[in-house]
Amino acid sequence: MRQRATVRQVAEETGLSIATVSRVLNGQDNVAPRTREVVLEAAGRLGRRPPHRRSPVIYVRCPYVLSDYFGLIVSSIAEAAATQRLEVLLNAGESAQRTDALRGLPARSGVGGAILILPPEPADDLVRLRDSGFPFVVVDPRTTPPRDIAAVSAAHFTGARALMSHLVTLGHRRVGIIAGPRDWLVTDARTAGHLAALADVGVLPTPDLMRHVPEPTVDHGHRAAGELLDRPDPPTALVGFNDKMAVGALRAAAERGLRVPDDLSIAGFDDIDLSRATHPQLTTVRQPLAEMGRMAVTLYTRLLDQHEHEALHVELATELIVRSSTGPAVVRGPMG
Amino acid sequence: MRQRATVRQVAEETGLSIATVSRVLNGQDNVAPRTREVVLEAAGRLGRRPPHRRSPVIYVRCPYVLSDYFGLIVSSIAEAAATQRLEVLLNAGESAQRTDALRGLPARSGVGGAILILPPEPADDLVRLRDSGFPFVVVDPRTTPPRDIAAVSAAHFTGARALMSHLVTLGHRRVGIIAGPRDWLVTDARTAGHLAALADVGVLPTPDLMRHVPEPTVDHGHRAAGELLDRPDPPTALVGFNDKMAVGALRAAAERGLRVPDDLSIAGFDDIDLSRATHPQLTTVRQPLAEMGRMAVTLYTRLLDQHEHEALHVELATELIVRSSTGPAVVRGPMG
Repeated sequence: MRQRATVRQVAEETGLSIATVSRVLNGQDNVAPRTREVVLEAAGRLGRRPPHRRSPVIYVRCPYVLSDYFGLIVSSIAEAAATQRLEVLLNAGESAQRTDALRGLPARSGVGGAILILPPEPADDLVRLRDSGFPFVVVDPRTTPPRDIAAVSAAHFTGARALMSHLVTLGHRRVGIIAGPRDWLVTDARTAGHLAALADVGVLPTPDLMRHVPEPTVDHGHRAAGELLDRPDPPTALVGFNDKMAVGALRAAAERGLRVPDDLSIAGFDDIDLSRATHPQLTTVRQPLAEMGRMAVTLYTRLLDQHEHEALHVELATELIVRSSTGPAVVRGPMG
Repeated sequence: MRQRATVRQVAEETGLSIATVSRVLNGQDNVAPRTREVVLEAAGRLGRRPPHRRSPVIYVRCPYVLSDYFGLIVSSIAEAAATQRLEVLLNAGESAQRTDALRGLPARSGVGGAILILPPEPADDLVRLRDSGFPFVVVDPRTTPPRDIAAVSAAHFTGARALMSHLVTLGHRRVGIIAGPRDWLVTDARTAGHLAALADVGVLPTPDLMRHVPEPTVDHGHRAAGELLDRPDPPTALVGFNDKMAVGALRAAAERGLRVPDDLSIAGFDDIDLSRATHPQLTTVRQPLAEMGRMAVTLYTRLLDQHEHEALHVELATELIVRSSTGPAVVRGPMG
């Protein structure tokens, strides 16, 4: 454990008075932002975290459209925050990605900490924020977060593996994988889960049956599924990185006259409303979105209370939901 | 126009000093909440509105899950607010309905005003809030808002009428209407639009072909559609209050072996993602959700600038989106 700096050390380091340093480290508001920043930087370098920030306001950053996915997480954060008498200052919408939101956060008076949902910032920015002593929790990290940054995510690997095991049990061996963006942690975890279940029955990865998309949308899913289905040796099943891509795959199948699941099985991931609206309804993996929001608030309040965490990375269980878009693999003769 | 009370009048009325009254009416923070409340109440009674509230924080209340519908409105409010250097304090999630959120708002320091999305509160509460001089805008009012409360909504009547005209042009005369909750303004507006288009071709309302639901969900749509389709003289088309109910209707049709649109036409309202995920894709009416959010922020900043509004109720155009779930009415012999 790092030695914690005393108020005196920070005062010596910065040349500020003990009273001023103490006010900042106790989370009081009556200090100029620039001075506050100087104190927090020095405290961060010296390994001192402010013991308490008094403001009941959490800055919640979700720089995406609040769709059925992100919106559910933000709703549950707002509800859980309210039960803790915390208030949510919201930064949302795609245009929020263009703002350099993290840099000024620690110096902002009136903000007690943050919950960052799928932050687009590089890991270095998160490390810098942590070093400033500013309390925050990451939900659904895009890249592997440093060990001592609090993070909540879903069990992507386990969920994807369960889904692919289901397909393997139905006899599928040639499965097309429509993967997410290459640089996302979650793409990696889900793909690894898919490949692990195939490896269990002795099937090795086939690059020809895998497509990465730049964005996990219905349209990209539609295009990638079309490419896979138009191969001379098409797959008997397709798994989408998420439900939207699976919906695109359903459309590609319909355009080619393929019946789902008779001719082709299709599965998604997330279990958003969309997955029950399709015909047939989608087999998918349920993400505990509301629970992720609640857990983020729990971790946040624990950070404020300065509890020591042994395991700051919380992974919440996912659940395989079998509906009617998956069925037995089409049996083919030796000539295909 | 109501005569505006002077600072002196409010001071006399309350027994407080002119300096204190002036601080409150100028939106400064350094006044105790209870005193603030007293001043605002008196100012409201005397018809005086505070000329400016300096806080850049908007309280955004959306006491629902931030699904593809509400989430899009909140996202666009957050984005539009950011461009105006306003911050969003979010109150969201269904549990927020249980809190008495409006009463304390005017006295809260640090909050400059509010945007209330589909507020569940009775109109009287909104009138009381307006009388306190607290600036706010209602998005998608549930009941008819008083004339001088700023409100943004979509052109529900016009959109529903355009949709039903489309069905009428396709030859439909027996159309089942799966309406929303009875006490919602928007249910009334959409139903009136549907009935107007039927009346245009001489068809009068048939209570037997109309169902109201307690909540506009897929499941309620499914149940209501089933009841209408199981009648001895079933409709040739079904319109859902929203896309979710239309999705439920698609399921009811599939269960009865009815092909859409060959045997039965089905249409929705809203144009959320769901409407493009179904097979066939839904004919629906697009609501300008993002624009509603942006317009709410525009009206809000105009309220702050004390512009006079001639027409505070803004209705934004909707758009008929014809996809493949609607087609010509099934031609029947004289015996049905």
